[in-house]
Formats: sequence, structure tokens, C-alpha cells
Amino acid sequence: MSGLHLKRSPLAPAGFPDLPVVGGVEIATASLGLYGARDDLLAVQFPQGASAGGVFTRSSTRSADVDWCRQALADGEGQARALVVNAGNSNAFTGQAGVEKNTATINAMSKLAECPPEQVFIAATGVIGEPMTADFVANALPDACADMGPPNWEKAASAFMTTDTFPKGAGATTDIDGVPTAIAGIAKGSGMIAPNMATMLAYIFTDAALSPAVCQALVARYAETTFNCVTVDGDTSTSDTLMLFATGAAGGRLIEDLSDPRLEVFSSALEAAMTDLAIQLARDGEGASKLIEISVAGGADDRSAKTIAAAIANSPLVKTALAASDANWGRIVMAVGKSGEPVARDKLSICIGDVEAARGGARSPTYSEAAASAAVAGREVTIKVNVGVAEGRARVWTCDLTHGYVDINGAYRT
Amino acid sequence: MSGLHLKRSPLAPAGFPDLPVVGGVEIATASLGLYGARDDLLAVQFPQGASAGGVFTRSSTRSADVDWCRQALADGEGQARALVVNAGNSNAFTGQAGVEKNTATINAMSKLAECPPEQVFIAATGVIGEPMTADFVANALPDACADMGPPNWEKAASAFMTTDTFPKGAGATTDIDGVPTAIAGIAKGSGMIAPNMATMLAYIFTDAALSPAVCQALVARYAETTFNCVTVDGDTSTSDTLMLFATGAAGGRLIEDLSDPRLEVFSSALEAAMTDLAIQLARDGEGASKLIEISVAGGADDRSAKTIAAAIANSPLVKTALAASDANWGRIVMAVGKSGEPVARDKLSICIGDVEAARGGARSPTYSEAAASAAVAGREVTIKVNVGVAEGRARVWTCDLTHGYVDINGAYRT
Repeated sequence: MSGLHLKRSPLAPAGFPDLPVVGGVEIATASLGLYGARDDLLAVQFPQGASAGGVFTRSSTRSADVDWCRQALADGEGQARALVVNAGNSNAFTGQAGVEKNTATINAMSKLAECPPEQVFIAATGVIGEPMTADFVANALPDACADMGPPNWEKAASAFMTTDTFPKGAGATTDIDGVPTAIAGIAKGSGMIAPNMATMLAYIFTDAALSPAVCQALVARYAETTFNCVTVDGDTSTSDTLMLFATGAAGGRLIEDLSDPRLEVFSSALEAAMTDLAIQLARDGEGASKLIEISVAGGADDRSAKTIAAAIANSPLVKTALAASDANWGRIVMAVGKSGEPVARDKLSICIGDVEAARGGARSPTYSEAAASAAVAGREVTIKVNVGVAEGRARVWTCDLTHGYVDINGAYRT
Repeated sequence: MSGLHLKRSPLAPAGFPDLPVVGGVEIATASLGLYGARDDLLAVQFPQGASAGGVFTRSSTRSADVDWCRQALADGEGQARALVVNAGNSNAFTGQAGVEKNTATINAMSKLAECPPEQVFIAATGVIGEPMTADFVANALPDACADMGPPNWEKAASAFMTTDTFPKGAGATTDIDGVPTAIAGIAKGSGMIAPNMATMLAYIFTDAALSPAVCQALVARYAETTFNCVTVDGDTSTSDTLMLFATGAAGGRLIEDLSDPRLEVFSSALEAAMTDLAIQLARDGEGASKLIEISVAGGADDRSAKTIAAAIANSPLVKTALAASDANWGRIVMAVGKSGEPVARDKLSICIGDVEAARGGARSPTYSEAAASAAVAGREVTIKVNVGVAEGRARVWTCDLTHGYVDINGAYRT
């Protein structure tokens, strides 16, 4: 795996964004040696009283790490003091060995952070089913945490990449009731991306003063419209984790209710950062050469519209056509049809970029193959579908399916 | 499209099988010029009193042809006199133009076969959304039908191929209550294969004396365990059609009830022929280099087991790993987990060929990477999964995802 050298995605942003300092968040990174000398371990500490919320994969073969985080959030009532993430081995489907690795890691970190175990959150990403020795991560933590300090966000985002070709970050300086408040988020993910609750691994940090219940409500609400709207290959990870940590270091009165009007500006900034991170996952989709945004309107309801959008986004025939810059809109018709959702076939309309391909259940009278080809020739493609049933809407992001995907996923373990 | 020259699949059978004459079935083929000089039109005639049954795509964007066949089976009470199939254009999503093409085709054929329109069945396969002139097929029928005669099954199976690299046939000589009875089936399909009721196009002909109700019950029953258990890419066609035609020319008393004990031997032979054809579709999966059989046991019920098997079969990560002869069984764990079906994670077991990869929710203590690699190195791979919930079982066939799939589906229209 350490032999995998991938070129930076052509869809990558120009550089890592300039993210704000988040009061109360301290970070350390180190190398466990799973990717040569590259950092593959991330440790984060929060001050006493920090809150957390999280959403996790719905996979029935989820990792022991996910089981732990869910339980710890409940047992510890959303109090968070530390986070430990390693890349190179997902610790998923490792049975008792995986539980022992987690116990050792959590015990080591709770000693360093001087907190109860249920205030330590963990995650791991990489190969599934390869047991690690129990103290592999635990033994590395004391040295790693000796360097704990104010975050270098790019370094932090780089320390948990697997097949990612660029580190992913997004954030903002916003305010809550006049108090300047920072948001910084980091994420990783490139393949096995079709989150069903949250995606691969994404962490958002803020110095806002939010109760654990508000943290939980915010991630749950915005996961639906951001990370849960991204798909690379329709494959759902065993480790998907999205967490929000709020240190309260910005000051201001604690917000304990999602409907608190002081949250309005902050919520928008949070959703924007989460959307930005989610789209970066599609931009770094394994082998991706095009970013594809699919909007569906006219669905029976929003859920139905999202199922239809995902059917288009996950169709290998749609994705391979786009990889070849072929505006094969008949395959979009096919994908809409296979979704199993209510569709008014004879009202169906499809636009590719600004080009109307279909209207009223047949090819548009104004359709131009040349114009449609031009609309799919670039790095970014937009597809708009109206299925003519009711008012449901959804927007989903994905990438194309190229030779690169086949190469990367044949070479991953070898 | 006519410029697409595909090499014969390495998984193709040695040759076309020797299929029996089916009394009462006459066939003609011709070229409409959609693939150069190659035949792309198939016409079949049946004697007065022949029965038919059929199952069709559940796509909500299904073709007008599928709409017609469903309605004609009902209106004509399962009486069949003719079948017309063209390749090169699916006539799907062509609105009123598609209906007009069908009306002209059906009228022309009903005149030639001297039967009411509702005894003529039709299908079309190829590009979606390109309207054809109304009489394009109708005008070709009189000349084509002048050559109507006893079937050359290989020629018939070749006349409706699209991206298929070999014609597909299967059949048997069996008996019903001591009366020798022939079964011959032909099918086409290579991509957009994830049938949801039936697959692309498959036609089974027999000279057995079966009532329309028995024909319908037989195809519906065996579609579930044969064609509906094949997937190439998880994409469901707008034209999927499976029909059984029974001429009665073998003689013998009409069978009017599925529970008639005289059907026993015949039913087994029919299911075997349908299974054979279904597997040939996976063998000709676009770009396929390996045939993969996935058996799931221990499911909550058979339907649940099939959903899990399909999740494995449609996972791009599983398919690309196998293409590279990588026994990446962790991705099988992932696919089981994302299926949304009940799974006892800590009882999960996986075998690849004869190699136990996982047992009791973790890597098997006897696992050998070398042995597992050997088990996926050949042209045929078997995967057995037990999800440890109850007694549900299913078996699904698919192929791997290779560079060939990306090539073929980028080049299809250009």
C-alpha cells in the first residue's frame, strides 16, 4: 500500500485553504510507518467542557471504532477531550483483536489527556480485516503527544489520508451573537464513498460554545445535505465518521437549543464548510477526471429525488460515458428508470449544462449533439433532471468512472 | 456504433450449442443496415394456437415496446403468432415517434402472419432516445419474412446482439409424459445488465403444449432464480424482456396447470436452459475477464440473501480487485455491510474458492494470502458468504470490472 503513488487529482483546489485558529484545539501528528515516513497518525486534544456530536456509518459490518464512538457519545453525554485517528489500517472486521487495539489506544490517550475513556474518540482508515497488534498505536501516542500544539490544519488533514491525492479542509470565521467564532473542518476520502449517514472521516472543530445536544443536532441535520449527498462508487465504508467538536473557547453564552436565533449565521457557515468538504471528496474521487453535480427536481418528495439523483450518480454507464466526454443522456433516462422511485416518464426532462436534452418524455426538439458534447467536455459537468411528479428536490455530487479507478483499485493492496 | 469491434469474451463457451428443432417455430433474419451488413432484425412465426408468457423490466422509463408486449399479453390472452426484434436502436424514450414505429411494425407483421395485432410481440435494443422513422422496420419485414423457415438458432441469436461478443443459446430435448419435447432459448445482453424482472432480451421456444397461464407462471417462477440473479453493472435496461413461446407441435394433452405432475422433467430442463443463458450473459459482460459466482447463506430470508449477494456483485471495489486477481476479501465485508440487510457481523464467514478468508467476524486463523490469490487467479471465481442470521439463500452471477468496461462504454455512441 505504501507503494501507491497517485498523481494529484486534476479536480483538486489550487491549494489548501487558509483556515482559522480554533481556540482550545491542539493537534499533533506522527508517523506509524504505514506509509513510509509520511504522517499517518493524528491526535487532537480539547479543553475541559468541550462538546461533541457525531454521525456514523450505517454499515452492518462497521468497525469496532465506530461502535466505540457511538457508545462513548452516549455514555459520556457528549463531552470530548481527545481524538485519535490512524490511517493505513481501518481496524474494521478484526474481531476481538480490533477491540483490544482500541482499548489500548483509548487507555493510553485518556492517561495523556487526563480524562475518562469515554471522552476519547477514535477512528481508523485503510485496509479492512488485517488485525494490528493491540498497542501499535498506543505505544506511539506519548511521543506524538509531546509535540501537541496549535493546529497546522494542512498537516492534520494530511495525516489521515489513504488514497486521497490532496488534503481536504474548509472553514470560516463567523460569529455568534457578535462573538467572533472559528470553524475549521478536515476530511479524507476518495474511494468507498457512498456515505449512509456520514462519510469516510470528517472532523469539524469550532470554538463556539455549543451544548453536546446542539453539536449532535447540527451534524445530523447537515450530514443529510452535504456528506450524504456525495458518492464516488456507491460503496459504503465500514468506518464512515463525521464529528463536530466545540470547545467554547470563543466565549459567549452556551447555546443549548438548535432553534436559538443566535445560531443562524454560524449554521450557514457550518453548512457551507461541510458542503465544501463534501465536494472535495468527489473532486478527489479515485481516478476522477470530472466533477459532476446532479440536481433532481419534481420528485415525489426530497428523499425520492435523492434516490433518483444517487441512481444517476452511481450508474457505471453514466459515469463511463462522461469519462469519455460522451453526452449519452439516454443512460440518464435509464438510471432514472431503474431507481424504483415514482417518475412521470412522459414528462421527464433533462438538461446537461445549459443544453436541453430531453423534454416531455422524448428527445428535446432543440437538442444539439454538438452543444451537449461541449457541455460535458470540461472538468465540471452539471446535470438537471425533472421527473414531473411533485416538488421533491435533491442535489448530489460525484465524479466520473475512468481507467484510473480500475488501476487504483486493482493496485491498492499489492 | 457499427464501428465497435469487440474481441470475443475470454469467458465465452467454445461454440454455439447444438439446439433442437422446435416444431412450429419458423425464423427469418435480415439486415436493416444498423451494423453494416450484419443481421440486426429477427422475425419469428408460430402456428395458430401457440401460447406465450413474459416478464418485463420494472424500469419506470421502460420502452414503448415493453408497454406493448405487456398489454398485448393481457388483451390477446397469451396467444402468440409472431415476434419481431431489432438491434441497433432500443426505441426507448422516443415518445410518440416510438409508438408510431411500433404501430407500423406490428401492423406489417400482423398482415404477414395473418393474425390480430395483439398476437405480435416486439422488442428493440440499442441506443436510447434516438427516434426512428415509423416504417423503418415495417418496410423491411415483407422481404425478410419471404425467407421464413426452420430456425438456424445461431443466426437467430446473432441477429439481435449489440455489444455482445458471442451469440447465446441453450436448450434441451426433454419429455412431457413420454412425449419428446424440445426447448431452445436465445438471449442477448452484455452491459446495462441488472435485470429487475427479466433481463435484456431472452426468448425461449418450446413445442410443448402449454396454456398461456402455464407459460406465464413458468417464466415468472424461473426468472427469479436465473435471469434476475445476473448482474454486469447494476444498471437496469429500459427494454428487459423474457418471453416463453409454446407451439404445442410436440403433441400431447394441453397442460393447463403449473402443478401438473407431467411438467416435472420439463420444468427442470427449462430452468437449466434459463440458468445457462443467464450465466452466458455474465460471461459476456462488457470487458469481463472473470466469471464470478456469489452464494449467500444464512440470510434473514431468500430475498435478503439475494440483496446481499447483489451488493457484493455490484460493488465496483470488489469487481476491480478481482479484475486484478486481488483476493481483497475486506471489500466483500464492506459490501455485505452496505446492503442494508440483517447481518450478524460477529458470525460472518467468507470463503473464496476453497479458501476460508473470514470466520466469526474476523480473518480466519487458517487464512493464507497465497492460497486466496490462487483462488482468484483463474477465469472463474466462487465466493461463499454466510451472514449468520437465519436460513435465507441466494446465488448470483457477475463478472469483474476491467479497463475493457471503461473503454466499451466510452466508445459506445462515438
